[in-house]
Amino acid sequence: MISVGIVGGTGYTGVELLRLLAQHPQVKLSAITSRKEAGMPVAEMFPSLRGHVDLAFSDPANAALGDCDVVFFATPHGVAMAQARELLARDTRIIDLAADFRLKDTAEFERWYKMPHACPEVLAQAVYGLPEIHREAIRGARVIGLPGCYPTAVQLGLAPVLEAAAGDLVERDGLIADCKSGVSGAGRKAEVPALLAEAGDNFKAYGVAGHRHWPEITQGLNALGGAPVGITFVPHLVPMIRGIHATLYARLTPQGARTDFQALYEARYANEPFVDVMPAGSMPETRSVRASNMLRIAVHRPPESNLLLVLVVEDNLVKGASGQAVQVMNLMCGLDERLGLGHVPVLP
Amino acid sequence: MISVGIVGGTGYTGVELLRLLAQHPQVKLSAITSRKEAGMPVAEMFPSLRGHVDLAFSDPANAALGDCDVVFFATPHGVAMAQARELLARDTRIIDLAADFRLKDTAEFERWYKMPHACPEVLAQAVYGLPEIHREAIRGARVIGLPGCYPTAVQLGLAPVLEAAAGDLVERDGLIADCKSGVSGAGRKAEVPALLAEAGDNFKAYGVAGHRHWPEITQGLNALGGAPVGITFVPHLVPMIRGIHATLYARLTPQGARTDFQALYEARYANEPFVDVMPAGSMPETRSVRASNMLRIAVHRPPESNLLLVLVVEDNLVKGASGQAVQVMNLMCGLDERLGLGHVPVLP
Amino acid sequence: MISVGIVGGTGYTGVELLRLLAQHPQVKLSAITSRKEAGMPVAEMFPSLRGHVDLAFSDPANAALGDCDVVFFATPHGVAMAQARELLARDTRIIDLAADFRLKDTAEFERWYKMPHACPEVLAQAVYGLPEIHREAIRGARVIGLPGCYPTAVQLGLAPVLEAAAGDLVERDGLIADCKSGVSGAGRKAEVPALLAEAGDNFKAYGVAGHRHWPEITQGLNALGGAPVGITFVPHLVPMIRGIHATLYARLTPQGARTDFQALYEARYANEPFVDVMPAGSMPETRSVRASNMLRIAVHRPPESNLLLVLVVEDNLVKGASGQAVQVMNLMCGLDERLGLGHVPVLP
Amino acid sequence: MISVGIVGGTGYTGVELLRLLAQHPQVKLSAITSRKEAGMPVAEMFPSLRGHVDLAFSDPANAALGDCDVVFFATPHGVAMAQARELLARDTRIIDLAADFRLKDTAEFERWYKMPHACPEVLAQAVYGLPEIHREAIRGARVIGLPGCYPTAVQLGLAPVLEAAAGDLVERDGLIADCKSGVSGAGRKAEVPALLAEAGDNFKAYGVAGHRHWPEITQGLNALGGAPVGITFVPHLVPMIRGIHATLYARLTPQGARTDFQALYEARYANEPFVDVMPAGSMPETRSVRASNMLRIAVHRPPESNLLLVLVVEDNLVKGASGQAVQVMNLMCGLDERLGLGHVPVLP
Repeated sequence: MISVGIVGGTGYTGVELLRLLAQHPQVKLSAITSRKEAGMPVAEMFPSLRGHVDLAFSDPANAALGDCDVVFFATPHGVAMAQARELLARDTRIIDLAADFRLKDTAEFERWYKMPHACPEVLAQAVYGLPEIHREAIRGARVIGLPGCYPTAVQLGLAPVLEAAAGDLVERDGLIADCKSGVSGAGRKAEVPALLAEAGDNFKAYGVAGHRHWPEITQGLNALGGAPVGITFVPHLVPMIRGIHATLYARLTPQGARTDFQALYEARYANEPFVDVMPAGSMPETRSVRASNMLRIAVHRPPESNLLLVLVVEDNLVKGASGQAVQVMNLMCGLDERLGLGHVPVLP
Repeated sequence: MISVGIVGGTGYTGVELLRLLAQHPQVKLSAITSRKEAGMPVAEMFPSLRGHVDLAFSDPANAALGDCDVVFFATPHGVAMAQARELLARDTRIIDLAADFRLKDTAEFERWYKMPHACPEVLAQAVYGLPEIHREAIRGARVIGLPGCYPTAVQLGLAPVLEAAAGDLVERDGLIADCKSGVSGAGRKAEVPALLAEAGDNFKAYGVAGHRHWPEITQGLNALGGAPVGITFVPHLVPMIRGIHATLYARLTPQGARTDFQALYEARYANEPFVDVMPAGSMPETRSVRASNMLRIAVHRPPESNLLLVLVVEDNLVKGASGQAVQVMNLMCGLDERLGLGHVPVLP
Repeated sequence: MISVGIVGGTGYTGVELLRLLAQHPQVKLSAITSRKEAGMPVAEMFPSLRGHVDLAFSDPANAALGDCDVVFFATPHGVAMAQARELLARDTRIIDLAADFRLKDTAEFERWYKMPHACPEVLAQAVYGLPEIHREAIRGARVIGLPGCYPTAVQLGLAPVLEAAAGDLVERDGLIADCKSGVSGAGRKAEVPALLAEAGDNFKAYGVAGHRHWPEITQGLNALGGAPVGITFVPHLVPMIRGIHATLYARLTPQGARTDFQALYEARYANEPFVDVMPAGSMPETRSVRASNMLRIAVHRPPESNLLLVLVVEDNLVKGASGQAVQVMNLMCGLDERLGLGHVPVLP
Repeated sequence: MISVGIVGGTGYTGVELLRLLAQHPQVKLSAITSRKEAGMPVAEMFPSLRGHVDLAFSDPANAALGDCDVVFFATPHGVAMAQARELLARDTRIIDLAADFRLKDTAEFERWYKMPHACPEVLAQAVYGLPEIHREAIRGARVIGLPGCYPTAVQLGLAPVLEAAAGDLVERDGLIADCKSGVSGAGRKAEVPALLAEAGDNFKAYGVAGHRHWPEITQGLNALGGAPVGITFVPHLVPMIRGIHATLYARLTPQGARTDFQALYEARYANEPFVDVMPAGSMPETRSVRASNMLRIAVHRPPESNLLLVLVVEDNLVKGASGQAVQVMNLMCGLDERLGLGHVPVLP
């Protein structure tokens, strides 16, 4: 059994981690911390966990996180990097669901997150936790920067056409990611714009002037090889709880115009347990992956255009966060990657 | 033209007042205050008002509220009573949408609102702003305690059977008000339980151990005459933005069992412009009154029971708050009660 | 392995059965029928099942249902009773999620469902599939009439106080069940009132003049012993997908007024794996059981009243239908009742 | 007073027309037809109209539509063109909210709507009812083909940069319209995908292989002058009732890269009563125009890209349908264009 600790279990990625880990056959939940709620049984805050999680929140100061095999940080940015050195010294592996170990360039990190990086040498060894692209590195990693929810959808949606091996299929500098997210992506924070009376029965774009997931997406796509990409990322808020839908546009090169993208995508993800390339003509719905770790992709060639259109759906709290974290943990611990992640999506 | 001021225009009853008053043919909006947002144009916070409201929020300290004919308080409890004496001295009339002037018994007020009453002598002259029951008193009032959203629905739903003139129709001590409200009733406050990710796709009761609208309902029903009532009030939160649905149960007396309640209700409200007694067999929907000042009632006798069942719907922000406030203002100012309140409900 | 067939797999209880059975360790899905969709892969209609269910819908005429150990009917009323004799002759057990085997009195059945009963002798041996009340009979049953969604919530909410052993705690003839359901309870039928543009952002009562679950509830409560009950049942439609919330009112007798109901309920359900009596003061939310077979109950004594107030939540598609069906199947087949039903509720 | 008839008043554009016309100071509602509901009072189907609309649906065969000054067709495609000649002979003007008079090329019409055009000579004189582009022609028109909901948003969003006078600002052949609509856009039809249990808490694209609004958009943009445009149109379904959000992308030419688009848009729409160009940096919300005829636009230059990004919101039932119809009627009848359309949007 893997002994697991969770730092910051009161947000949505925290409770989702608990949902998944409580049903994982090889995990023992050892500690879950919250400074503010120390002493409160977890199931008192989240009655959905009654009978499944018996732990109480413990004070971070007292939690024996160093005794855990793996510690997940489901915290705001900046928390994981403050504790990383100490945990690594205890040989505890770290999976950070926030952004501390995502951006490799500390100047970029500091520009977007408005704080200095606390441990550049840990960042240097951290692995970006996107298994479909970095599986082997993840197996050997001691620190994981888990991808953001949007970056997971956008990178997996575009990787097949941008990877060096694919050839010159699309214009790399005019990509568009028009993305839509349910409100749980904003976290369990008391903020007016996320109220049901504000975000319900409503739709809007946000973060147009610059969103923190943009440098992460750019870094990830550039790392696929070939010329640097240019991508415009426009996120929107959908009046639903879970789910991300990415609508991705790329201009075809002459080679691209002759390519069978359906076959390309099916081949690229043929052995991926959590990426489903849907049949030609499909239009994936976010609910088709609700509460599951599956990500679905459909590839289209809009009529009378020179575009490739890729539609991607994921549950932002599962494949976009906590499910991917468990998938990464499985890899790091030598387990079957799929363990504890076999849930059938909840529909309707 | 009536010169109107609004104290506290950043909440939902405030913006709804602005929506209604901006279209009112006899109102001049003179000032709207917000300590926190002083200087910001109202339409910047609420783009729905662009082109309709040109005012900026002004600092309460500088606002010439005493020059207004009427001042609405769309504020938390306690604000109106702190300013009432000064405004009355300037001959400005006050309509408080909060609870400062609802409960006649200051001990009750202090028990439920956890603050001493600042001006009992003003409270003594305040009129409870429910036109269908207190129309004449409202016409002459200088201070109005506007009813809460639930109390409006419950009192208008039960008044016809509890009024002394109706006779002995129901058991007065076993009334039940099972009420359901959209989330805008909780106000525009940043609180976790009102997030879309919490309140969406969810249903629950709340306030079972005691809700501030209970003493107000009880006071109002007792004032109808006859023996004191006993009522159990259970509010629930509905994943919608606007709307209250009250499901009211009363046990029939032998006289009640022989009564034609459809006729009784139709007669009672025959001349009320904002109460619609629907045809027998109707089941009113909250959306049938969305964004309008209408309240609809349907009366049922459930099969094989000894109960009267009354279904009531209103828009909690209109008839349950700001619309009723305008209706009351019209009465106080000698205008046609319906002025500025003729909106057709928005459906779908 | 238990060989399972499903008749009528295109509705919500059908797809929910498939979700649960696809993850059940002792079940082999052998056939799923749909006259209309014969030949279509199930996962084409419900992409959430891709990779989990490989079957295609088969024509009922050709399906070898008689070879199955258990056949579930997720069909409209009237289908199961037409096929019951033939399946029983093949020694196949039947679990009907519709109403064919719920009402013991065929006259009552015919009155409420407007059709003659096709096999009264099968009805006579059918067992009402509510494990918490009829567990032993279910173990030996060959035909199950599975409870409706509302009747499950109402009966489990009131059983502890109505069972003969409990004594004389409440007035048996003045019970009220004010119930609220998400729209999936209406099924996957193309009907205008269930459109998002109709039922969204809206709340209303329905079925006040008589709902088919009322005779079922009455039959079930009467069977608990003691004097016959009288109950008024008012269902409401909530703008959410899954979930039932029952708000139950009972008048206390003098003995009831002295009773510790929290202790009574906790004792009654102490050993029930799928009934959770929450701590005193709780207000259960429907989302706390979303996508799980758990039903949660909270018991209250509203202040200044003589009432017992019981709040019950369940997922209408799980404990209110397909999950309960699997629970019953486990019992009939001698398996651990909890098998395949251990899902943690999905929150948020 | 203008005598108005409505053909097909049972859908969402019909009830929205009724809401607007019932409050219009210069309109007399003379007839509203429905073959299926003939004889039923309109307010019985739509209780929101109780007290505002006293008409009953009349049989189309008997309705004296030819006596009306203006007849609106809120019907499926094909109905208006079947009755147009007869009404025009009676000197009645026609405003068709469906597609019969939108596409000027009958071959295109037949290709997209799968029916021959019944009156090409009427089509030839019909005017496309988008006042901001065709105001003068509308004033003199006898037949109006009212724009679709998406085409209204897309054309008004792109017109300022595509009009010949604007110069060569964007690449005309690589436009993208990523559009999102609430479910009322699908009409009040009983169809499974529009159920709350299907479309709620969900997001998806649809119509990717070809949507009927695409040829309409293309025709409209081409008519602005200059080289033909090429536009990719991807509509998505949002779990909300009303509202369209268009996210529009255009590549800048060198001239465009030097252009102040904020100033350009403000100048273009300076005198338009129903187009609001928001301040730089704004992100318009659909609710900011809910239930009103206003359309709001925000213009952005995404960082590190060569794109113009235009965000447009409208209420699909008002500016996208019935409100625009009233605006057009006002123009045709020589009234102030704004008459009866001054509603403040309903927020929250």
